[in-house]
Amino acid sequence: MKVSVLFSGGKDSCLTAIMLSKLFEVELVTCVFGILQNWKQAETVAKKLGLPFKRLKLKKEVLDKAINQILIDGFPNNGIKYIHQKALENTAVISRLVADGVRRDDMVPVLSLAEIRRLEDKFNVHYIQPLMGYSRKTINILEKEFFEIKEYKSSSSFIGAEYEFELREIIKRKYGIQKIKEIFPQEHTHSIVIKMCSQNGSRII
Amino acid sequence: MKVSVLFSGGKDSCLTAIMLSKLFEVELVTCVFGILQNWKQAETVAKKLGLPFKRLKLKKEVLDKAINQILIDGFPNNGIKYIHQKALENTAVISRLVADGVRRDDMVPVLSLAEIRRLEDKFNVHYIQPLMGYSRKTINILEKEFFEIKEYKSSSSFIGAEYEFELREIIKRKYGIQKIKEIFPQEHTHSIVIKMCSQNGSRII
Repeated sequence: MKVSVLFSGGKDSCLTAIMLSKLFEVELVTCVFGILQNWKQAETVAKKLGLPFKRLKLKKEVLDKAINQILIDGFPNNGIKYIHQKALENTAVISRLVADGVRRDDMVPVLSLAEIRRLEDKFNVHYIQPLMGYSRKTINILEKEFFEIKEYKSSSSFIGAEYEFELREIIKRKYGIQKIKEIFPQEHTHSIVIKMCSQNGSRII
Repeated sequence: MKVSVLFSGGKDSCLTAIMLSKLFEVELVTCVFGILQNWKQAETVAKKLGLPFKRLKLKKEVLDKAINQILIDGFPNNGIKYIHQKALENTAVISRLVADGVRRDDMVPVLSLAEIRRLEDKFNVHYIQPLMGYSRKTINILEKEFFEIKEYKSSSSFIGAEYEFELREIIKRKYGIQKIKEIFPQEHTHSIVIKMCSQNGSRII
């Protein structure tokens, strides 16, 4: 059975892919708007995992609607959740099983149980969140054990494959860098997996 | 890293054990009160999985308190949840990581997020629920693919390793068979895994 995993190349989506690889054929999917080349980061990590990688382009309207929401709110949470829902829906069109790396303790982009069931029913899809049964503390231990990662702040020059980077780019182009500083938390960090290994040094997948 | 999985030999706890075996050393733990020999069912399935098995005896007071609760309520849910919490706590004393087969759509014995955090903090333990990010529909597909199971009703002559069977036995001895019929749903089914195989016929763990 094939499962499509929404993938940024960060530690949570890598751990998700590894967990699912025990029981499924895993395909990694990075959703983008075509503004930046940030998906290349994800593709590099996908190659390290040895798993097939797909880039899925979302409609410009999704980005516009997310940005409108973010400008109204003054913070990015609801806009990012909206993009994530559209990413899940678009992936649900091409795959019968979709998964992501959302964790039990995450605030964004967590769908409610009602939203999960709506997604599953509307698109006749199975939505799997393998990290939902784990605390952040447990996931941190696993990631420390299995990955070598690089952490970087959203505000640094590093461009990751998370939705946030294309959002920031468009808002910066349209409203200037000051708007970015008003909306996005400066200290928010992302991760990219540099290396992965199992306890005995063998391949993890 | 070792994780202790609360184990009945049913399909959910088997699937939990298999999922965790990708990243952890799995030990299976069946909690009993010493009333019946029902743990032997779980031990048989543990052997089929090729994983270490441990029987953990819970205090008689736990059973008494659960039965009192069940008699007050007139239904078993809260009593079973209480036993499950005590099983988790007792396992937390012997293991740094504990897990169970509770699913997203389960009603019993699901702990609230507050109860989960209390367990983790009080016992300095990691509590993992690997099936929490899966719908019942998805789990059914996986179990159909990987297991050959036998389903049986609680009211049948088959005695499984779930808490319910020792509860029923004690209530029957003390209050007669009519009380059992009043309290427990007649159509509730349990499962026991008869055989397991991966898609290509090789060992699953």
